[in-house]
Amino acid sequence: MVVVKPCENPEDNPRVKAVFDDIRATRKSDFINNVWHYLAIDEALLERTWSEVKEVMATPSDLDPFTKELIYLAVSIINNCEYCVHSHSAAARAKGMTQAQYAEVLKIVSLAAKTNHLCNAMQIPVDPEFQVTDE
Amino acid sequence: MVVVKPCENPEDNPRVKAVFDDIRATRKSDFINNVWHYLAIDEALLERTWSEVKEVMATPSDLDPFTKELIYLAVSIINNCEYCVHSHSAAARAKGMTQAQYAEVLKIVSLAAKTNHLCNAMQIPVDPEFQVTDE
Amino acid sequence: MVVVKPCENPEDNPRVKAVFDDIRATRKSDFINNVWHYLAIDEALLERTWSEVKEVMATPSDLDPFTKELIYLAVSIINNCEYCVHSHSAAARAKGMTQAQYAEVLKIVSLAAKTNHLCNAMQIPVDPEFQVTDE
Amino acid sequence: MVVVKPCENPEDNPRVKAVFDDIRATRKSDFINNVWHYLAIDEALLERTWSEVKEVMATPSDLDPFTKELIYLAVSIINNCEYCVHSHSAAARAKGMTQAQYAEVLKIVSLAAKTNHLCNAMQIPVDPEFQVTDE
Amino acid sequence: MVVVKPCENPEDNPRVKAVFDDIRATRKSDFINNVWHYLAIDEALLERTWSEVKEVMATPSDLDPFTKELIYLAVSIINNCEYCVHSHSAAARAKGMTQAQYAEVLKIVSLAAKTNHLCNAMQIPVDPEFQVTDE
Amino acid sequence: MVVVKPCENPEDNPRVKAVFDDIRATRKSDFINNVWHYLAIDEALLERTWSEVKEVMATPSDLDPFTKELIYLAVSIINNCEYCVHSHSAAARAKGMTQAQYAEVLKIVSLAAKTNHLCNAMQIPVDPEFQVTDE
Repeated sequence: MVVVKPCENPEDNPRVKAVFDDIRATRKSDFINNVWHYLAIDEALLERTWSEVKEVMATPSDLDPFTKELIYLAVSIINNCEYCVHSHSAAARAKGMTQAQYAEVLKIVSLAAKTNHLCNAMQIPVDPEFQVTDE
Repeated sequence: MVVVKPCENPEDNPRVKAVFDDIRATRKSDFINNVWHYLAIDEALLERTWSEVKEVMATPSDLDPFTKELIYLAVSIINNCEYCVHSHSAAARAKGMTQAQYAEVLKIVSLAAKTNHLCNAMQIPVDPEFQVTDE
Repeated sequence: MVVVKPCENPEDNPRVKAVFDDIRATRKSDFINNVWHYLAIDEALLERTWSEVKEVMATPSDLDPFTKELIYLAVSIINNCEYCVHSHSAAARAKGMTQAQYAEVLKIVSLAAKTNHLCNAMQIPVDPEFQVTDE
Repeated sequence: MVVVKPCENPEDNPRVKAVFDDIRATRKSDFINNVWHYLAIDEALLERTWSEVKEVMATPSDLDPFTKELIYLAVSIINNCEYCVHSHSAAARAKGMTQAQYAEVLKIVSLAAKTNHLCNAMQIPVDPEFQVTDE
Repeated sequence: MVVVKPCENPEDNPRVKAVFDDIRATRKSDFINNVWHYLAIDEALLERTWSEVKEVMATPSDLDPFTKELIYLAVSIINNCEYCVHSHSAAARAKGMTQAQYAEVLKIVSLAAKTNHLCNAMQIPVDPEFQVTDE
Repeated sequence: MVVVKPCENPEDNPRVKAVFDDIRATRKSDFINNVWHYLAIDEALLERTWSEVKEVMATPSDLDPFTKELIYLAVSIINNCEYCVHSHSAAARAKGMTQAQYAEVLKIVSLAAKTNHLCNAMQIPVDPEFQVTDE
């Protein structure tokens, strides 16, 4: 059950159309998934979100695209976003993620959740060795 | 301010000593960081946690160790575990993470948090295209 | 799929009926939404929850009702409560929230989520200027 | 204990200086709080974050600045960001928030957290009356 | 670094004094811990919170006080409330919690966190056998 | 909509069959609920998760099985795992949880969520009386 109704013909709005065109060009695909249709209720929100996703995720950088996608997926699992778990596991599979690699992501995410809560529960003091210092 | 007191001479306990020895051997370092001292209040918890960390993080697998460490770090940020953010950013730096790469992790984590909440807020329906199907 | 079954004729219980009557009188509407039917499994829980909602949300105070509703909605988004996102976005619309204002709430919530995680990730020290002091 | 070291003379970098100048001009104050010093480890992250904060929070819009600040503060409490709780309660006080109003925010945030978890715990179905429909 | 200043002589206010007196009488102790001093910035918030804590935690009910305290502690760990982890682990120790029992709580909390995230990550459908039905 | 497809005949794999057999023997029931079918996509993950669940939850220890199940349920509510809320409330009912006791769990979980956020919002300093000390 949705909370907002997406626009019916979003591309009648030239600012929305420009973003959708750029999504299609960047991804070399005609498919515009739901999140962009919903964000189109506010052009500024749509433009800014796409611009940030494109800059962070689709621009060559110091981390490879596959690693970046797995980090995105892991965060989506922890934040319990059903839509994002689906869309980013699909994106990771499109970038070559095997089922064995997805199982590894699950192992790390669930192990980290476990140790995160153990440390928070015991309020373990940070070792001075982990301090970032000048040298 | 801690919630439990770590044991004073944990290695007097042979089960604890065996784990600590394995940590030192696996990491080729004499440094045992605080989390292991605190987990030593319960040998079974210590043994199981180390065994899982070793198997998931220190055993060759379908994902490289650096990628795995970044995923662990991202989860720790989202779960807001102060100890884990410090220990796993230190571990990532030890595996070669540059400051530029850490900034990239921050960009992905914070962008994912942003879109996760946008999708949850709008209760966006999952596109059928993301469905996992038989082929 | 529900976890508890709501009572079939909750108003046969006079304590439940008294709360339901007060909800109808306070809201000037006959509609009793699901959450109250489910909370009716325990009269004390029902009475206390309604009493608190009424006192905090429906009593004139130093913040106007519309602002209070938006804060409630924002918290519900972050806690990822599907029921509350629906009920409190409906309540906010009933108090006059436009689609443009909802888009603004989304922008603030998602921006805050982003900067919250950036600050947590870097463990940024609090500026002394933010200290609450005697004057 | 911090995770990254902020730059020592961040304004030697002209892109950082441009952002800092804009922060000072927008806020009519010389004070640059810590978060901007830390974000300066990556100019693109700094520029994008400030640009979004300025657009969402400091640009006239359909919600008044005080309401927007309270929503930001509420989200920061739920995400348990110590830095943000301090900086945004300071910002809200600067915009006129009284102690009585802060107590009200606390009442709404904690009440919402309570009902959010009650609804999640019982997996209460969304009332069809809350459905967004065409008219 | 605190966000609000607690009142200096809170018991000059008779409503605050009445609550503090009841806390002392209920707990048979003169010690009033910090949370009550801080909540005293708003009498209604103080009264309601203490009344609810007393009713839920200090009134004989279908669950024994020790079990209730452990549940409270577990929730506080997951919500990462430093104050509550300290105060409720102290309360649980006062009710007889041994270090071995605390280690068990840690095992359950961290195991649940692990499986919670595994299930969320895979979006596992709920078995119809778990459905609550009429009989 | 699921993210991974469970194996069709998982027990063709002898490692999976061994775990499933042990689940049936431990629980004295033929019913294998969905989570184990999904975890079977990776034998090591399945083996380790079942082994930990069995050791922590099904082995006699310093806390009784009913209390342990309620703690697990409380954590699952806070982590908002729909599957786990269903499976662990079913497990708690199987161990004798009445509807009145479930209502009590709800009261504690929601009260704790409320006070957790109040304490986090005010950044209340931990009382020195809660410090864990020697002797």
